[in-house]
Amino acid sequence: MIGQTAGGAALYQAMSSLGHAAESGYQGPARLSRARPGASVVVLGAGLAGMLAAVELRNAGYQVSVLEYQGRAGGRCWTLRGGDRYTELDGTTQDVGFAKGNYLNPGPWRVPHHHHAMMDLYRRYGVQLEPFNQVNHSAYVHHSQAFGGKPQRFHHISSDMRGHVTELLSKATRQGALDEAVTTEDREKLLAGLQSWGALDKDYRYIASLHSSEFRGFARAPGAGLMPQALASTPIDLHTLLQSNLWKHIGMENMQEFQTTIFQPVGGMDMLAQAMARDLGPLIQYHAKVSKVEQSENTVTVHYSDARRPGSLRKLSADWCVCTIPASILSQMELQVGSAMRAGIDSLPYASSNKIGLEFKRRFWEEDERIYGGISYTDLPIRQISYPSTGYMRPGPAVLLGAYTMEDNGSYRFASLTPRERIRMALEYGSQIHPQYLKEFKTGVAVAWHRVPWIQGCFGAWSDALRAQHYEAMAQVDGRIVLAGEHLSYLPAWQEGAVLSSLDAIQRLHAKALSA
Amino acid sequence: MIGQTAGGAALYQAMSSLGHAAESGYQGPARLSRARPGASVVVLGAGLAGMLAAVELRNAGYQVSVLEYQGRAGGRCWTLRGGDRYTELDGTTQDVGFAKGNYLNPGPWRVPHHHHAMMDLYRRYGVQLEPFNQVNHSAYVHHSQAFGGKPQRFHHISSDMRGHVTELLSKATRQGALDEAVTTEDREKLLAGLQSWGALDKDYRYIASLHSSEFRGFARAPGAGLMPQALASTPIDLHTLLQSNLWKHIGMENMQEFQTTIFQPVGGMDMLAQAMARDLGPLIQYHAKVSKVEQSENTVTVHYSDARRPGSLRKLSADWCVCTIPASILSQMELQVGSAMRAGIDSLPYASSNKIGLEFKRRFWEEDERIYGGISYTDLPIRQISYPSTGYMRPGPAVLLGAYTMEDNGSYRFASLTPRERIRMALEYGSQIHPQYLKEFKTGVAVAWHRVPWIQGCFGAWSDALRAQHYEAMAQVDGRIVLAGEHLSYLPAWQEGAVLSSLDAIQRLHAKALSA
Repeated sequence: MIGQTAGGAALYQAMSSLGHAAESGYQGPARLSRARPGASVVVLGAGLAGMLAAVELRNAGYQVSVLEYQGRAGGRCWTLRGGDRYTELDGTTQDVGFAKGNYLNPGPWRVPHHHHAMMDLYRRYGVQLEPFNQVNHSAYVHHSQAFGGKPQRFHHISSDMRGHVTELLSKATRQGALDEAVTTEDREKLLAGLQSWGALDKDYRYIASLHSSEFRGFARAPGAGLMPQALASTPIDLHTLLQSNLWKHIGMENMQEFQTTIFQPVGGMDMLAQAMARDLGPLIQYHAKVSKVEQSENTVTVHYSDARRPGSLRKLSADWCVCTIPASILSQMELQVGSAMRAGIDSLPYASSNKIGLEFKRRFWEEDERIYGGISYTDLPIRQISYPSTGYMRPGPAVLLGAYTMEDNGSYRFASLTPRERIRMALEYGSQIHPQYLKEFKTGVAVAWHRVPWIQGCFGAWSDALRAQHYEAMAQVDGRIVLAGEHLSYLPAWQEGAVLSSLDAIQRLHAKALSA
Repeated sequence: MIGQTAGGAALYQAMSSLGHAAESGYQGPARLSRARPGASVVVLGAGLAGMLAAVELRNAGYQVSVLEYQGRAGGRCWTLRGGDRYTELDGTTQDVGFAKGNYLNPGPWRVPHHHHAMMDLYRRYGVQLEPFNQVNHSAYVHHSQAFGGKPQRFHHISSDMRGHVTELLSKATRQGALDEAVTTEDREKLLAGLQSWGALDKDYRYIASLHSSEFRGFARAPGAGLMPQALASTPIDLHTLLQSNLWKHIGMENMQEFQTTIFQPVGGMDMLAQAMARDLGPLIQYHAKVSKVEQSENTVTVHYSDARRPGSLRKLSADWCVCTIPASILSQMELQVGSAMRAGIDSLPYASSNKIGLEFKRRFWEEDERIYGGISYTDLPIRQISYPSTGYMRPGPAVLLGAYTMEDNGSYRFASLTPRERIRMALEYGSQIHPQYLKEFKTGVAVAWHRVPWIQGCFGAWSDALRAQHYEAMAQVDGRIVLAGEHLSYLPAWQEGAVLSSLDAIQRLHAKALSA
């Protein structure tokens, strides 16, 4: 039987019929036919969308130029390391003081395994991935008004909610309240399932016991030899739990976006951007500040200047243009497109978001509190504390994410402060959860996305109404210009949205170029 | 405020009052006072328990000798790599043919972060850890009689069970069936929680929708540009789910033993054993087969031979003895201890277990099926397929765990076969889940623990009754001899049990040695 073989196609068929094929609109890497000889494209922006477009169009035979405003490629696919300098819109400059090997990803920081286009890019460029620890049952959930402000371990809250919910449903089922919804045949299996998931006792009660402690944790863990015997812990009662509101932080991990396996590139999110920029080499012109994009029946002309030498006007012409400049910047530029696309560009608001990286002298969250990676959630304006998913147990300084806000009051409040004040605020709030903060702090860096010069916001914040009105018009090829980026996707803020948008846009542009 | 500092003790107090201190009987690394000058100990077995005892007693000033039957240290903390040779009880030898860097951990293979003694050892010896991927929502659950034998994705089964359970409880709650158990004040929050966890609609129904698809997965995922629109997937109905019995594999991940963060040493489980063996250096005598242990009022005498040269009898005397030889082997030896301890040794059965490592030409589970680490569960005799939690996306051959059985009929059936037959059986069953098996197989290695010469079983399988009768007697210091190992713990089969047992045993032995 081992000797049997089957062809790849037969295997794939077998897999498809088993329902194994990925349920994704992604059709695999772009397979563009050959471009017309001499055809040219200018790509605006060397983020992931722009660079992928440039790579695929170059490979198809186009003459490609990429104009990038910054001195580096990647856009929001960005990593700040020790020695980096970052200047905000108002000129405030931060010199990142992190120790060697430490970093903050101010933008995207994780990649779900089912983001197939991104995973293919990592594979293609040989970028090494490691697991991003999204859920840590030993991390905290914290509300300033609950449990006297004491942070609670995730495993206590999640186990107790599950215990109470399964106990309640067992009770209803056994009392016959659900006889219409559950057949007699199913009732027994449902009760067995509830008993097992909830760690209920033989009478379907969720009570303090060594059994329930195997889920929620022990008051004293089982030991060895003649050590003291294990002690059961006592569940939190349902009323206290519900009124604490901590249950609101339970369950997000069940969303597909956050399900295992979820990754991060080893060494920082920008490892892929660096690899793609190396691939494109001299095709990328850095420090190119685009001011105007014109198009005629035959050509696209981009007006730009050297961002380091204002006034130095230049022009670049090509047959086609892929524009990945965020709508937030595009709305401030002259772009010769139809009124429907223009209306979309001018209407799309960008979300507010902050990230603050804090470097501490040691990994006290690991050493003192046994929290290895994962995220603590709080109702404080910092919202989250995320512990590094790399270098576990390494001695010396480490960086955690001390605040991650999005589209809330805290987000606007942070953005109104100087970086130094933001860091102080993150430390002040964070020390309510980790008192070690004050003693162990070394240095920090704060990125308020509305103050980032080259985007002035975090991501395109489509409402349903706005999308219905403008999205399709913005996604069209307008003459010789097509837009791409996460703002032209149904996966806002995700890199997958940016690269899928890029692939979709260049396929349509290429088809038009061939038929023109 | 940043300038404020607090002393370490004050911080620890703050942490304790916040409930941060670990709920473990483990008191930190052994801190033995100085031994009496010239005092000596012989340690039997260079597994983790034996080596930790040797290290700590040496550090306290004892003259330490370790006798180890095998030619390597570590015992069940064991990694099989390409080039290794392993011979079973009946002489059947396997030459491991894995490619460089690939391995199987036949024994322990993961370390929960709350196994504090183990984590301290990794820290102390600088052994690098990486996350062990216990739960992968994209791995399979499979029963041969359910869904026509087609494997199902974990995220479908788990999301659908959660959806149906929360819908049922919402219904009961809204119909007033639980008015006695849930106050009016709590009712609203409970319903909000159920709606959120279950991905229920506004009428508390679990139905096909883009919202429920955000949890269970889409029929077609959201895309970008003008790609086809996302399509909702359809939940499996409750009756089909319950009757499939696949729900039995949901929820184990909520046990504390399997909660995140859970680790594996980079490069193989034996990395710690190797580091400890280097630390002990010439104190360990390998190939030392112990046949008899005698004790008098003043001394312990161990009779042993060179396992490679039967008949070469030797003796070694010391003041004290820490014996970490498994009870399964000890029961076949002369050991001069009291009848109560002897009865325990002779009564303790050892669990049956099998592990089979299969090397394939490529990571088809990642490439074809987007399964990166984690475990698929099945009702077939192989029970599990566990995908490597390391080297994600690496090209070339990789090893998965193709069978992991414990104390079931399959376990005995595997153990009755030759290694070659076991591997064939694992391939035959596994190909029902992964049809690529047959085409991609390269080589394998099979370990049936009842056939491992130096233990003849997997771990001490205490029943409650046996433990009540024998455990305490076995854990005593008997004259000058104390036993240690996972079999003298409440954490059977876990390395944490072995090292806690060792620490507890040497502390009591040391106290006796000082007072003697």
